[in-house]
Amino acid sequence: MVNFDEFYSDRAGKMRKSEIRELLKVTQDPEIISFAGGLPNPLSFPISDLKIIVQNVLNNHGKVALQYGATQGINELREIISERSHKEGMTVGASPENLMITSGSQQALDAVGKIFLNPGDVALVGLPSYLGGINAFRSYEANLVGVPLDKDGIQMDLLEEKIKELIKQDQPVKFIYTIPTFQNPAGTVLPESRRKKMIEIAHEYNLLIIEDDPYSKLRYDSAALKPIKAFDDEGRVIYMSTFSKILAPGLRLAWIIASEEVMRKLALCKQAQDLCSAPFSQYIAYEYMKSGSMDLHIMKICEMYKPKRNIMMDSMKLYFPDGYICNRPKGGMFAWVTLPEQIDTEAMFLDAFKEKVAYVHGKAFCVDGGGSSSMRLNFSYSTNEQLDEGMKRLGTVIERKMKVLCR
Amino acid sequence: MVNFDEFYSDRAGKMRKSEIRELLKVTQDPEIISFAGGLPNPLSFPISDLKIIVQNVLNNHGKVALQYGATQGINELREIISERSHKEGMTVGASPENLMITSGSQQALDAVGKIFLNPGDVALVGLPSYLGGINAFRSYEANLVGVPLDKDGIQMDLLEEKIKELIKQDQPVKFIYTIPTFQNPAGTVLPESRRKKMIEIAHEYNLLIIEDDPYSKLRYDSAALKPIKAFDDEGRVIYMSTFSKILAPGLRLAWIIASEEVMRKLALCKQAQDLCSAPFSQYIAYEYMKSGSMDLHIMKICEMYKPKRNIMMDSMKLYFPDGYICNRPKGGMFAWVTLPEQIDTEAMFLDAFKEKVAYVHGKAFCVDGGGSSSMRLNFSYSTNEQLDEGMKRLGTVIERKMKVLCR
Repeated sequence: MVNFDEFYSDRAGKMRKSEIRELLKVTQDPEIISFAGGLPNPLSFPISDLKIIVQNVLNNHGKVALQYGATQGINELREIISERSHKEGMTVGASPENLMITSGSQQALDAVGKIFLNPGDVALVGLPSYLGGINAFRSYEANLVGVPLDKDGIQMDLLEEKIKELIKQDQPVKFIYTIPTFQNPAGTVLPESRRKKMIEIAHEYNLLIIEDDPYSKLRYDSAALKPIKAFDDEGRVIYMSTFSKILAPGLRLAWIIASEEVMRKLALCKQAQDLCSAPFSQYIAYEYMKSGSMDLHIMKICEMYKPKRNIMMDSMKLYFPDGYICNRPKGGMFAWVTLPEQIDTEAMFLDAFKEKVAYVHGKAFCVDGGGSSSMRLNFSYSTNEQLDEGMKRLGTVIERKMKVLCR
Repeated sequence: MVNFDEFYSDRAGKMRKSEIRELLKVTQDPEIISFAGGLPNPLSFPISDLKIIVQNVLNNHGKVALQYGATQGINELREIISERSHKEGMTVGASPENLMITSGSQQALDAVGKIFLNPGDVALVGLPSYLGGINAFRSYEANLVGVPLDKDGIQMDLLEEKIKELIKQDQPVKFIYTIPTFQNPAGTVLPESRRKKMIEIAHEYNLLIIEDDPYSKLRYDSAALKPIKAFDDEGRVIYMSTFSKILAPGLRLAWIIASEEVMRKLALCKQAQDLCSAPFSQYIAYEYMKSGSMDLHIMKICEMYKPKRNIMMDSMKLYFPDGYICNRPKGGMFAWVTLPEQIDTEAMFLDAFKEKVAYVHGKAFCVDGGGSSSMRLNFSYSTNEQLDEGMKRLGTVIERKMKVLCR
């Protein structure tokens, strides 16, 4: 038989099994209450609206929606997102020419990795940070270096220190990857002062910022903040957002905003990635935005998720033994819990599995090997009843573990 | 301002503008008759069937079709494609576990490049060969080496010679990229004897075969042939096909079949590429296949395209001056025309553009810099009237060019 190992590229050799995905396989048992995935609640999908929208798309745009489309995406959708981006503060550099539709944010992350990262290039990521970003950059053999978060996200003094240290080691940083608003997994929000400071640092040390913004619309008790991109007058920030959390991930639609020069490279990259994102999905998103239903729909999602966040936090207080740390997330989909350091959440996963409750262990999000006593809990997917029951089960698991360890 | 050149990866530096895409921009004038694109005819899209299908999808699968899906694709679709593949002769190694749904074949080509190609690695491609494949492999800095086609596709003696030559130069080949049936752009069909021979060569020299098969269902007067994959008992052949030519490219759906070991790498790669292909599109394709309409629909497409092929060939005979070579394609979407060698089809493009007719010049498909007097003509997209009129215009352009050159 063929020995395929002889054929794989160096980068393929470094592709790691996604720990989350492996764990998720375990959680397909319907009796398991899973806080592991990053899934929107399926009840939030506007199915009845989409039935009408999809007919409109086939009636009005059938022949173009079913055909190959432009690499950067259909003009109508790029224009309507561009208008929205302007309203959100991206007054410079967010015109339709600066904008490309991608097949989910993951494709945008892949493209960023592909056009910027040589093997060994340094990219800074939060400690913890989104696993999909980590995977995308690792698949181009990047050297990922972590910068610790506090309760307000990436710490600017530590960021600058790390950059200086890396320069001394002759390893200059190419970009910072950051999820400033309702960070995945930590749930933190970077304050405006830090956003501005990050831009200053990027300018001073000549590096780029990759701003990943999937969750900022899912606000429960937090004021709206401008994206980092809104403070960028040099084109250093490459911004991305997605329809996955505000409409439906099953359409696989997101967008990336970058200065026109970078956009030309991104478009070349996208041609080799998948030629274009599905025009059919794009017209659905366009007609949906055009219908004016988007804002109302986002309100509905927030009304659905806020009580879920509350139940998770209340149940945590009720069922978890003392000694954990969890900042109440003001938006997004995740709570990040740190347990006493004797507890290894990776090892504890099997205990949780036996109790039919699942989470993702913290190490999966930490490029420095840390996070071993932390876990990420998703609160958007489960029903309210499952949230309470699942937290109860998880509390029992943690309590038992702590007793064993304290003996 | 930022000097982005300092940031790009080596591979980004080597990404070339797609010549086709640049040319296509020119052809957006509605008065231009374009034989340049590789587009299906929009009248072939089963829009009224899809109106029903899409409602079924939203009614029966709404919550899963709009959610994130499994990386390898939804089970239902993988099973139904697997069954079909078995019927087409892929009796070994085409089970659902061997099959992954991709976002168009382009993504499958990107994944193959990503998991197999280190910078400088050799891949063999036909002379000429499909530009999308060339682009994907180039984006991983491959060393693409061409093997000439005759009227029956890649020549096996030249293939073997080239492999030996490369081994001597200490540049062993990783894989052969081939479109055996109704090749893009040449329209050739590799006979069964050559298919078997290619497998033997792959075995003898220990290399892989990437079989790209988008067109085999579009048969006008050619017997069905088994894919190369059907003769593969070692897992050396990685097979890909697509819904773009038999349903609608706007769904961006294709599939790739590989041995399970390679499939694990491909799935890891896909996680970083875009997590999963749109479950919404996947359920549409699945319901469409399940409805039993697919075979009838393929017949209809063939009934639509065959007369188009005939018109193109008849008009060529009628309007083109003597001295060209074009083998009548027995299927697919393209005719490959070679003009007398004094003619440079790239230079002639502007003349054609002035006459409001477009094609793709042959050099774009030839990794050795050849093909300068050839052109690719698409016959699926235009109306019958446009086909005749466009060939007339093109004949005039060629005739004029030849007169100037022969003076």
